[in-house]
Amino acid sequence: MPFPFFNAHHSPVGAFATFTFGMKGPKGGLGHELAGPANEPIYIGVETIDGGHYQALPFYGEAHTSAENFDVEGLGDMQFTTAVKPFADEDIVRNFGCAVDEWCAGDLSFRVYSPPQIVPDPKGEDARHVLTPSLIVELSVDNRKGQHDRKAFFGYAGSDRTVGMRILDEPGMVGIGQGTSIAIATEDEGVYAGLGWQPEAILNPRLNENLGFMLGSIGLLVGVVPAGKIRTFTFAVAFFKEGTATTGIETRYLYRRWFNRIEEVLQASFENAESLISEAHGFDDALANQLQGSRRLMAAHAIRSYYGSTQLLEDRLGRPLWVVHEGEYRMMNTFDLTVDQAFFELVMHPWTVRNVLDQFVERYSYNDGVRFPGDSEIHPGGLAFTHDMGVSNAFAPATRSGYEQAGLTGCFSYMSSEELTNFVLAAGLYISHTQDNDWAQSRLETLLACLQSLENRDNPRSDHRNGVMGLDANRCAGGSEITTYDSLDTSLGQARNNLYLAVKGWATYLVLEHLFRQLGDESAANRSLLQAERAAQTIKGAQDEDGMLPAIMGEGVESRIIPAIEALVYPKVIGIEIKDSELVNVLKKHFETILVPGICLFENGGWRLSSTSKNSWLSKIYLCQYVAEQMLDQEEDNRADDVHWSWLMDDDNAYFAWSDQMLQGKAVGSRYYPRGVTSVLWMAKGDRPLRQIEEHLAGNRVKCESLP
Amino acid sequence: MPFPFFNAHHSPVGAFATFTFGMKGPKGGLGHELAGPANEPIYIGVETIDGGHYQALPFYGEAHTSAENFDVEGLGDMQFTTAVKPFADEDIVRNFGCAVDEWCAGDLSFRVYSPPQIVPDPKGEDARHVLTPSLIVELSVDNRKGQHDRKAFFGYAGSDRTVGMRILDEPGMVGIGQGTSIAIATEDEGVYAGLGWQPEAILNPRLNENLGFMLGSIGLLVGVVPAGKIRTFTFAVAFFKEGTATTGIETRYLYRRWFNRIEEVLQASFENAESLISEAHGFDDALANQLQGSRRLMAAHAIRSYYGSTQLLEDRLGRPLWVVHEGEYRMMNTFDLTVDQAFFELVMHPWTVRNVLDQFVERYSYNDGVRFPGDSEIHPGGLAFTHDMGVSNAFAPATRSGYEQAGLTGCFSYMSSEELTNFVLAAGLYISHTQDNDWAQSRLETLLACLQSLENRDNPRSDHRNGVMGLDANRCAGGSEITTYDSLDTSLGQARNNLYLAVKGWATYLVLEHLFRQLGDESAANRSLLQAERAAQTIKGAQDEDGMLPAIMGEGVESRIIPAIEALVYPKVIGIEIKDSELVNVLKKHFETILVPGICLFENGGWRLSSTSKNSWLSKIYLCQYVAEQMLDQEEDNRADDVHWSWLMDDDNAYFAWSDQMLQGKAVGSRYYPRGVTSVLWMAKGDRPLRQIEEHLAGNRVKCESLP
Repeated sequence: MPFPFFNAHHSPVGAFATFTFGMKGPKGGLGHELAGPANEPIYIGVETIDGGHYQALPFYGEAHTSAENFDVEGLGDMQFTTAVKPFADEDIVRNFGCAVDEWCAGDLSFRVYSPPQIVPDPKGEDARHVLTPSLIVELSVDNRKGQHDRKAFFGYAGSDRTVGMRILDEPGMVGIGQGTSIAIATEDEGVYAGLGWQPEAILNPRLNENLGFMLGSIGLLVGVVPAGKIRTFTFAVAFFKEGTATTGIETRYLYRRWFNRIEEVLQASFENAESLISEAHGFDDALANQLQGSRRLMAAHAIRSYYGSTQLLEDRLGRPLWVVHEGEYRMMNTFDLTVDQAFFELVMHPWTVRNVLDQFVERYSYNDGVRFPGDSEIHPGGLAFTHDMGVSNAFAPATRSGYEQAGLTGCFSYMSSEELTNFVLAAGLYISHTQDNDWAQSRLETLLACLQSLENRDNPRSDHRNGVMGLDANRCAGGSEITTYDSLDTSLGQARNNLYLAVKGWATYLVLEHLFRQLGDESAANRSLLQAERAAQTIKGAQDEDGMLPAIMGEGVESRIIPAIEALVYPKVIGIEIKDSELVNVLKKHFETILVPGICLFENGGWRLSSTSKNSWLSKIYLCQYVAEQMLDQEEDNRADDVHWSWLMDDDNAYFAWSDQMLQGKAVGSRYYPRGVTSVLWMAKGDRPLRQIEEHLAGNRVKCESLP
Repeated sequence: MPFPFFNAHHSPVGAFATFTFGMKGPKGGLGHELAGPANEPIYIGVETIDGGHYQALPFYGEAHTSAENFDVEGLGDMQFTTAVKPFADEDIVRNFGCAVDEWCAGDLSFRVYSPPQIVPDPKGEDARHVLTPSLIVELSVDNRKGQHDRKAFFGYAGSDRTVGMRILDEPGMVGIGQGTSIAIATEDEGVYAGLGWQPEAILNPRLNENLGFMLGSIGLLVGVVPAGKIRTFTFAVAFFKEGTATTGIETRYLYRRWFNRIEEVLQASFENAESLISEAHGFDDALANQLQGSRRLMAAHAIRSYYGSTQLLEDRLGRPLWVVHEGEYRMMNTFDLTVDQAFFELVMHPWTVRNVLDQFVERYSYNDGVRFPGDSEIHPGGLAFTHDMGVSNAFAPATRSGYEQAGLTGCFSYMSSEELTNFVLAAGLYISHTQDNDWAQSRLETLLACLQSLENRDNPRSDHRNGVMGLDANRCAGGSEITTYDSLDTSLGQARNNLYLAVKGWATYLVLEHLFRQLGDESAANRSLLQAERAAQTIKGAQDEDGMLPAIMGEGVESRIIPAIEALVYPKVIGIEIKDSELVNVLKKHFETILVPGICLFENGGWRLSSTSKNSWLSKIYLCQYVAEQMLDQEEDNRADDVHWSWLMDDDNAYFAWSDQMLQGKAVGSRYYPRGVTSVLWMAKGDRPLRQIEEHLAGNRVKCESLP
């Protein structure tokens, strides 16, 4: 198991940027808008106490001198003897938090601060402080036992293929970087910057004037720790993208409001450093107060991965656009992620949930007919939403996703019905948490259209409706809709008559009823209630004699699935009383019956979402754990937590930071993924879950400081 | 031998951009500011005459579907059966010119047009037409024998790691691209664009609405060729970089004056297409009139590689900065390349030579002392120039290069003395060709400083001077200066007392004399003449009894080097009469004696620049061939030409387009390189070489068309 050597994100919010590291070798780096780690060598080290040699954290590989491409016969005298060696694994300790990641080895300690912060709506407040696209890093050396001054260093070898490494030329700071987009700098006294093919050329330059060797692939910042002293260096790690950020919709990063050059970002970072560091410690303390063991580690890890995928843009009219990229896939604002991430986002920046919902309504919705399976007749359908808004910085055309393809029955088919439920559920979460009644009122029409569309997707004839989706979108062109479990077998992959989606539909109708009553539309509320009752009836009616429910109702698919219980989360978090306790009992019975080895537990005790598949999604396990514990009276399954953490720590998985989709413990898809923030629900043990999380994580801490 | 399957550049001027292709497999692509080929699959093909299947030029590999990263258990139904096959090698014919590269296979022909064009000084004239950063491409299918309509296609899979492929959304055109920086489009009727993981998904989409699959890595443009017809599609291939182009000096691409979006570049390309195509044919005809066989091929290939490295910027005040990147090394305006490329640049855009010289004087020059070898006493030196101006879009600090390192005796040491000669020689070439007397006058002081510095680098005592560089720059800090042959052994690597540099110094003094007389400074002219005479005397005095000259004079290095004759090119091209015919005869005798197998000919007849090294530079061979033929009465050595071409066509070399440095025929350094434009001298067979080349290549052709 690679602990502590696993990659984790360290990211500012909204910059689609990350300092990923933790794996041994050149497997991390400063990644900007990437689908995975940048695979750059990172150098963090200190001179040995007896001098002349160096020890470094093991985040680099063989220094690759390119001299042989110039000096083809090896006649030159540029080469340096290796003087930097990695610390031994057993001498390295990692204190891994969500906001502080600390590495200690020998006399050296290294800390990266990237605290989750409340992001104010940039419409109203000045969010410059929070949205500065940078991290703060500290490198400390305890040289109290040292007889000599010792050098300490931090740097990297950039992988941007279009620009070379450079030394910054900015008054008041010393820095290195690549182009206009990535830089590391310090304001500390006496630090020097150097470039070279080998770290030794910078650490032990034969002549100082050689430090500006711009062909060098490595840049280091080097400071001196006096004999007998402890010294801590503070670095800012900044990301900056200057020009057009996306196509399809022309945008720029919102931080461009305040910053024109990366040097300005660095400057602002130094100004923020102190408060950022204290905020980071505060966050990790709060998290540790609430979660322990594998849960704390998983939540910390998952939240980090979430931030690495966040991107805050503004269009040409200055309107903010919040985007979460889908990890390794980089699909933008995938709706079935949005709904899961909403629990966390509502605590940290509720306006982004509204922002994404508005983007869906205004550009990524469409009207469509529906069809019975195997039948070409088109019945009225109604409003639906796209799966996503595009891929890798390219916004999709209006009404289209980057993912969905017609004519399929499996992966890449449409998710129209599930995205419909996702709109209602996310809107319900947002409205209940923020009490933003103006927005609720403004979206009444959309909600009515959702209800209509959901009804139509159940059955064209009102008297034939059973509350469960029974018709596929006409956009499928004869194919079948799928669910967010797109690569799972039929048990969770097929949308039609799916137990998971049926419960989610039931919850959606409950939320609609709740919202319509609040908005004063009793008739729509009653229609919603009727559909909820029908759905409950259908689900309860599907229970077999062993107390289990089939994955696909009425189609002879007898797989057993954990996510049957998932959607119970929505009435709970929104604060809707579930009057149908029988349904809850049926789901509870189902859950208790299937959560056993041979059905929905792997042999090692890990949760298996479907009895007929080895494919599990951690984000969904976390969500179902919350439901099980808070609504179905189950104990915390900490043995399972340890197994789930061990999946993330698998030799092959640890490279991808937090990953969602695990095929019998191997991250095979949905890697480097943002969705695991469902884990914050673990800390909500009372009646108002989001308020509780808010109090734990965001309550007493510094909010955005308005800067001029 | 891989002919015709070798990579070649196809580049607009000044965009540091290239459509490189020709190697089989995904070994070329649309490269922007890269050190080598982009390694992207390129798809160029046509439906078979019987329909359903496709044949394509072999510039792609196995289509790499990423579906397995999503559909981890392979349950989906997205896969397409392979329907695209490469044409058989023997069915492919390439007509390779400098401006037109045509590929014919079966009924398909494919032409890329990238004509070298006169670039006017953007200060005075509107250069929009010439500086539009794009290429024109034609794809023709002869379907006269076809009974069915057939699809034809062109596209690629982009390698930019931060943005996904996209379909352009621009009225009047259909296109694909990546982000804001690379795009291919057409205005032709009925062409459609599609994205997918496999070309088949775009060529044979099951449903047309699936063509917008933004997860797809491949983008194709597909048109239909009616049965019984020939149809030609016209595409524009555009490059665009929006933001800050360089650090160190903040610049943008000069074409940003006219273009704000890549779509505007495409638009302008279509407007230019017709004249560009006719210009391309005109250029290739002119070239073919002058050069045949391997010489024509090498010149065409080399000129292409030159353009791929060119970059025209402007600073914040709107002042143009001309940069040639150094091929795979991407050093900017390496001075020892500038002087070689000047022969070509003066014909095509003389103002860029002045522009680069001005950059050297204003920012990349310095004053330095000099030292005798092994002695730490510093004697007065004087003006010198840096080796380059930075690396890979990062300008170096003023007075510093990216390359030079102190304390060395070999590769990466200083080239101060040779760069001094390069300034004088390039200035002399520029002034004589353009008759720009104002500039000459404005640089009189610099030329005087060059003379002073050259004298001081000969010997501190005037009466000890022998016309040859004898002291190393103090910046070497005790090391030794080198020459442009930086990775060759002492015979060409060491600057001090080097025969090659001595003759170059002699030529430099002659040019200085010429310029000072022209500028009315008789005293400086006489000083220059004296130094030229001393140099000639030293060189002649070094002749041994066999009529050969030693590579290092007076130091017992008896290697024999061809570049002894190289610098004869300068008086010839500038039009300075060489009064010392004895020197020419000594050099001629030397050359004739060494150009034999066992000394400076490889066994196969290729030229070997130094008898003690296997390292040769093609650009320098071309230059020396010109001198040998036009000044030393040698026949064209076409056997050697064929060998040199065969080096470029070597299995391992063909990937790097035109490369300079060959270790016994293998391109081991200076690959993907701009310097081979010395080959244009081959076509200068009279007394005014540059005028001749100008008449051949640029004389009767369209000049820049001013557009509104």
